[in-house]
Amino acid sequence: MILTVSLNPAVDRTAEVDELKPGCVNRLKHVKDYPGGKGINVTRVLRILGADVIATGFTGGYTGKFIEEAVRECGAESAFEETKAPVRTNLNIISADGSVTEILEPGSFIGEEVISRFLVKYEEHLDRADIAVFSGSLPQGVPVDFYGRLISMAKKKNVKTILDCSGEALREGIKACPDLIKPNIKELSDLFGQKTDSMEAVKGLAEMIRQEGVKNVCVSLGEKGLLLDDSDGYHFAEAIKLEPVNTVGCGDAAVAALAYSFDRGDTGEIALKMAVAVSAANTQERESGKFSVQLMDEYLKIVKVNHTIHREV
Amino acid sequence: MILTVSLNPAVDRTAEVDELKPGCVNRLKHVKDYPGGKGINVTRVLRILGADVIATGFTGGYTGKFIEEAVRECGAESAFEETKAPVRTNLNIISADGSVTEILEPGSFIGEEVISRFLVKYEEHLDRADIAVFSGSLPQGVPVDFYGRLISMAKKKNVKTILDCSGEALREGIKACPDLIKPNIKELSDLFGQKTDSMEAVKGLAEMIRQEGVKNVCVSLGEKGLLLDDSDGYHFAEAIKLEPVNTVGCGDAAVAALAYSFDRGDTGEIALKMAVAVSAANTQERESGKFSVQLMDEYLKIVKVNHTIHREV
Repeated sequence: MILTVSLNPAVDRTAEVDELKPGCVNRLKHVKDYPGGKGINVTRVLRILGADVIATGFTGGYTGKFIEEAVRECGAESAFEETKAPVRTNLNIISADGSVTEILEPGSFIGEEVISRFLVKYEEHLDRADIAVFSGSLPQGVPVDFYGRLISMAKKKNVKTILDCSGEALREGIKACPDLIKPNIKELSDLFGQKTDSMEAVKGLAEMIRQEGVKNVCVSLGEKGLLLDDSDGYHFAEAIKLEPVNTVGCGDAAVAALAYSFDRGDTGEIALKMAVAVSAANTQERESGKFSVQLMDEYLKIVKVNHTIHREV
Repeated sequence: MILTVSLNPAVDRTAEVDELKPGCVNRLKHVKDYPGGKGINVTRVLRILGADVIATGFTGGYTGKFIEEAVRECGAESAFEETKAPVRTNLNIISADGSVTEILEPGSFIGEEVISRFLVKYEEHLDRADIAVFSGSLPQGVPVDFYGRLISMAKKKNVKTILDCSGEALREGIKACPDLIKPNIKELSDLFGQKTDSMEAVKGLAEMIRQEGVKNVCVSLGEKGLLLDDSDGYHFAEAIKLEPVNTVGCGDAAVAALAYSFDRGDTGEIALKMAVAVSAANTQERESGKFSVQLMDEYLKIVKVNHTIHREV
């Protein structure tokens, strides 16, 4: 059983407009809502892979109901702690000239009482979980070391942990030594406050994190591919060359594939292949958190992994 | 029992931003959702007045659930026909300089099957209703003479009818001779395609509509006041001078008051006083569809109605 933790989910709304004019009345066309937030994408991808999933975190209001319904519809167990404020909606407005205006809501403020209730239930969920996946930003009110705390609780119950977030939440989370983190190259650079413009630099920073006790560090390099640094050394897989339909949620698809593979006991090499194939299949869908298993199977046949050992850096 | 018909309700979302920049990421502050749409405002105001209300129309999706919950919360019976597409959300973004950007969604498309199901239920609701109030725009898919059809069905069952809409829907609705319409001065001008810059012009147009068979024509003149043209002549009530908190939904408050008063069998003069007082009390609330009964009572004492007979025009 895989436990996914989404503390700050969102409804992703996309719409079109001829030209967005501030201070005026703007009429949208082709409005569509999708369940969003990194952990929700991970949940849905895991379900397509066939994993048993419990999805927890915070939801609230009528937008929360939409998220919970999507979670149940994909066949995962919905076990969210309810907040009073509704889940935020993020609006992406695409103008006729192709420019995109993002109008993002702040996540709702989570009070101490809700956090306490969540922690009690979270501990119970851990008893049924083999892996816990923590994805996305922390909502207001949740302390910056919260992921670290959740990771420590999971480790005490021998539940493996995967953390995918950025900034301070990632820095603090790393201190609790999750089994895997998956920063993208920008998140990795931000963590160290330095540019990482070469593969060697990326490898060096990944290995520094591994030396701090994070067993597996997977760095997404965008259209270049994925690097996994584990006890065997570096595994690098080039991304599959494709014309993407939508690249949003590709990192989440990779995280889901890694969690699924780790749960099966796959080697790092196989896990990385899965991550590249699922992520590539995800780029071919308009909607995040979806992919074609048939495409994944095709891609799995062509992914190549290049292995180097640590001392070669 | 008063039946309110909301064919195109909306979630009204208000939010603040420093400066809205097209093509960029914009982070909203102080986001708040309100149940919206003219018929929903009418429903809520009627409930505060103490009327028994059945609210019908079209809702759908998770936003529809929010509307239905608001209807039930105010104590009205929620009897909406469910559509597949979610109820639209209208976003009002207030910039730091005070300018407002409105981002409006199109109403969802209503299919013939849903319309047929609605008509069956509508006929049943009419059996329990004394007055039916039709408010707001028609969603896509609904024919432009739909209000006319609903009004004719109501009249066959001796249910009084009030129509508050604009443009073609109003023009077509008038043909079925509702008991009351409440255009604002702009809607009245648009109907005749001519400017109405004097009280005499307004009176003339109102009387033309009355001669076509609409028994009562109430024209809202914004901060000037309300004019009611009925079989007794013209009743004009000056608006109460107030610093408004929010003028959105004031027309709906007036419609609700007129419906309530007509249901009680009040004279035109008393109905008009109610409309002015409730509408004024509504301007003192941030939220549409709300008002203080205490304020209404205070205002009722100071509203003055000026009566002139038809031949004076």
